[in-house]
Amino acid sequence: MANSTYEIRAKNGSSEASGKQFKIDRSHPGQWTITFSNPPINIFVPATIVELRAVMADLKTDPSVRVVVFDSANPDFFIAHLDVAKAVAQPGVLDLWRDFVLDLASSPVVSIAKIRGRTRGIGNEFVLACDMRFASRQNAIFGNPEVGVGLVPGGGAMEWLPRLVGRSRALEFVLSADDFDADIAERYGWVNRTLNDDELDGFVDALVRRLVSFDSDVLATAKAQINRFGMPTPTELQSSNDMIFSILASPGAQARRAKLRDIGYGVPSDFELNFGRYLPSFGPADGTAAKQQA
Amino acid sequence: MANSTYEIRAKNGSSEASGKQFKIDRSHPGQWTITFSNPPINIFVPATIVELRAVMADLKTDPSVRVVVFDSANPDFFIAHLDVAKAVAQPGVLDLWRDFVLDLASSPVVSIAKIRGRTRGIGNEFVLACDMRFASRQNAIFGNPEVGVGLVPGGGAMEWLPRLVGRSRALEFVLSADDFDADIAERYGWVNRTLNDDELDGFVDALVRRLVSFDSDVLATAKAQINRFGMPTPTELQSSNDMIFSILASPGAQARRAKLRDIGYGVPSDFELNFGRYLPSFGPADGTAAKQQA
Amino acid sequence: MANSTYEIRAKNGSSEASGKQFKIDRSHPGQWTITFSNPPINIFVPATIVELRAVMADLKTDPSVRVVVFDSANPDFFIAHLDVAKAVAQPGVLDLWRDFVLDLASSPVVSIAKIRGRTRGIGNEFVLACDMRFASRQNAIFGNPEVGVGLVPGGGAMEWLPRLVGRSRALEFVLSADDFDADIAERYGWVNRTLNDDELDGFVDALVRRLVSFDSDVLATAKAQINRFGMPTPTELQSSNDMIFSILASPGAQARRAKLRDIGYGVPSDFELNFGRYLPSFGPADGTAAKQQA
Repeated sequence: MANSTYEIRAKNGSSEASGKQFKIDRSHPGQWTITFSNPPINIFVPATIVELRAVMADLKTDPSVRVVVFDSANPDFFIAHLDVAKAVAQPGVLDLWRDFVLDLASSPVVSIAKIRGRTRGIGNEFVLACDMRFASRQNAIFGNPEVGVGLVPGGGAMEWLPRLVGRSRALEFVLSADDFDADIAERYGWVNRTLNDDELDGFVDALVRRLVSFDSDVLATAKAQINRFGMPTPTELQSSNDMIFSILASPGAQARRAKLRDIGYGVPSDFELNFGRYLPSFGPADGTAAKQQA
Repeated sequence: MANSTYEIRAKNGSSEASGKQFKIDRSHPGQWTITFSNPPINIFVPATIVELRAVMADLKTDPSVRVVVFDSANPDFFIAHLDVAKAVAQPGVLDLWRDFVLDLASSPVVSIAKIRGRTRGIGNEFVLACDMRFASRQNAIFGNPEVGVGLVPGGGAMEWLPRLVGRSRALEFVLSADDFDADIAERYGWVNRTLNDDELDGFVDALVRRLVSFDSDVLATAKAQINRFGMPTPTELQSSNDMIFSILASPGAQARRAKLRDIGYGVPSDFELNFGRYLPSFGPADGTAAKQQA
Repeated sequence: MANSTYEIRAKNGSSEASGKQFKIDRSHPGQWTITFSNPPINIFVPATIVELRAVMADLKTDPSVRVVVFDSANPDFFIAHLDVAKAVAQPGVLDLWRDFVLDLASSPVVSIAKIRGRTRGIGNEFVLACDMRFASRQNAIFGNPEVGVGLVPGGGAMEWLPRLVGRSRALEFVLSADDFDADIAERYGWVNRTLNDDELDGFVDALVRRLVSFDSDVLATAKAQINRFGMPTPTELQSSNDMIFSILASPGAQARRAKLRDIGYGVPSDFELNFGRYLPSFGPADGTAAKQQA
């Protein structure tokens, strides 16, 4: 599926080449708005993570900033997912990611994800690492499809989710590798709140105006105290991170990833719009459950 | 109350004698459906737990199974509760239960409870030990009535619930010893989701089809990681288990349990349908709050 | 704003002078109902905490009591907040508060907060220390405005909330320093349940009748087991408590607290009714975000 939105973006070309996937708006005092744009579908490549680390370094040089809002320039994709092949070719990038997660979560700056469109895999792990998540009822979709492609989420989902939504809802989300809508995300507790799309901007703006009106040292002190509970440790994050490379080499993962090749993975496609729906059609590697497939 | 459903089942006789309380459907590749049937009201007796342990041992011999679904043949009772007198006469059975809970929760097989009817006491502790719980909005009822009969839940409720629903909702549930409907169970977070009864089977079937299409080692790896959070330890479970015998001997528990004798406990009755509602009428053992009773 | 309710109460004078801010109804066997009344707006002063400690000591002398219900004589304010200036002038009072929190939470008596009106700051920390919280949908409002006045919540909010509602919702609540209604409080999980105002009394009464009909040693045993999870430690509570005095001395806190002086703080006023709404208008101490303010 290549709709007109994608075509327009494709003409503009990918921003990856220019090294500028994040557009930063510093025009509001105390606030940075960081908009992710990596056309055509906001995929995370190694360069995205490198640039994200640089953005965080910049953030530390601006003592006036109290709040950072992350959003997306693409209404269909907040973050598509990681380009696994490229990430694997550059293994250190996953260590950078782990450092980014810990850095963002422990930063004195308050981080808010304003979520429209799909956010899957590392995208869901990105919003989980933000201090707060607000989602569009009509447009936000959440997924960690890794299990369905023979992998496990290695960037934090298995550490953040059980703490936020309990063991059973975390198991459902990660093991089913399905897409979940924003209402379920609110009921399960993995976003703070789901709002009607036309109320989302106003809600986040009002919250940001409050936060930037407060003193940064007080915000930082309170955040640090609350962080004593509900934060994954570096060791825990590393433990999931470490799994990626061993599991990638398994025959099951190889077989599943082969099936992704001509299906529209990583490009504008119906597959990327409805990732979760496609996964059961791959079937198990050992064929034992083959009759089960429609 | 002996309605026609019960009469029909009573004619079929209890399956306890035959040692087959669990009917296993292995006709779907990758999936076992284990249906509990111990007419007339699906009570847990020591033989139930012994058989359940054997079922788990069988499960381990089938490497193709990825998902086990537990349901009930009785639309009114998923699991009535434990027959406490019989369990006490065979004390080792509670150790078997603790082992079953840990075994099920740490098994590489994904367990799903599909809940219709009442599930009380050890029944609620059974579904809490399952990886996921889906409940019929119209027909599922949850309760841990132990406190109301002078006991405490000894089979895991006091370990699973605070982790899933927080301290205050766990206290309300356990201390009130009341019946809770499926909508509250969803709002409190102790089931994954409550669905309309006519959508429950389809929802669980679709989820199972997804899970059996994935690779068993990947499901097992992800489950093990998520289990790092939200799992009770053996020591914690043993600690509640140990309380049962000392508290059973207390005069309060003896007095309350005597009141259960002619009220319909353990047999088809209005008492078993509405267990929670009856408990306050027993009054406190020391009579101090007697005037409070209606 | 001085409406007729306030005027009537003002004529009756503050109960602070008499040392009787808590009216105790012991007329129901097994139950104490403790009604807070410190006209005109139910503010906590050092004498309140001293009296509360005495009430808890009395409670221990009555072995028949199983349940204590806390409510308010003022329909607009459950507990306004702490009078910070008076508390600071009597520093030991915050240690008394920490001891009260631990004492109430670990008491064999079951505590229930029945919440109508605003409960902010130490008021929210009071209800968090109760075993269960039930709120009026129409009238209950929750807030920890400390960050907005240059302080941090020092009485337990940063310890209880992340355990109950998860890291992200706790951060939103504490950092935004805003007022939250009862429906959000239920969705976030920090009250057990929100009920229509005309159903609140009946619901709590029925729950209390159940609890007082049960045996006190059984209630106490179950509560102690559940308390193994979700209870802050004394060290953690002390850690937030310790922050108050250092942060109070900061220029930011001094500047913000100066702004409270002529705005209606601590007296019947529109400010006290809508505390959260006023906070962003103070602006940051360093002026960096001044342009942001409306």
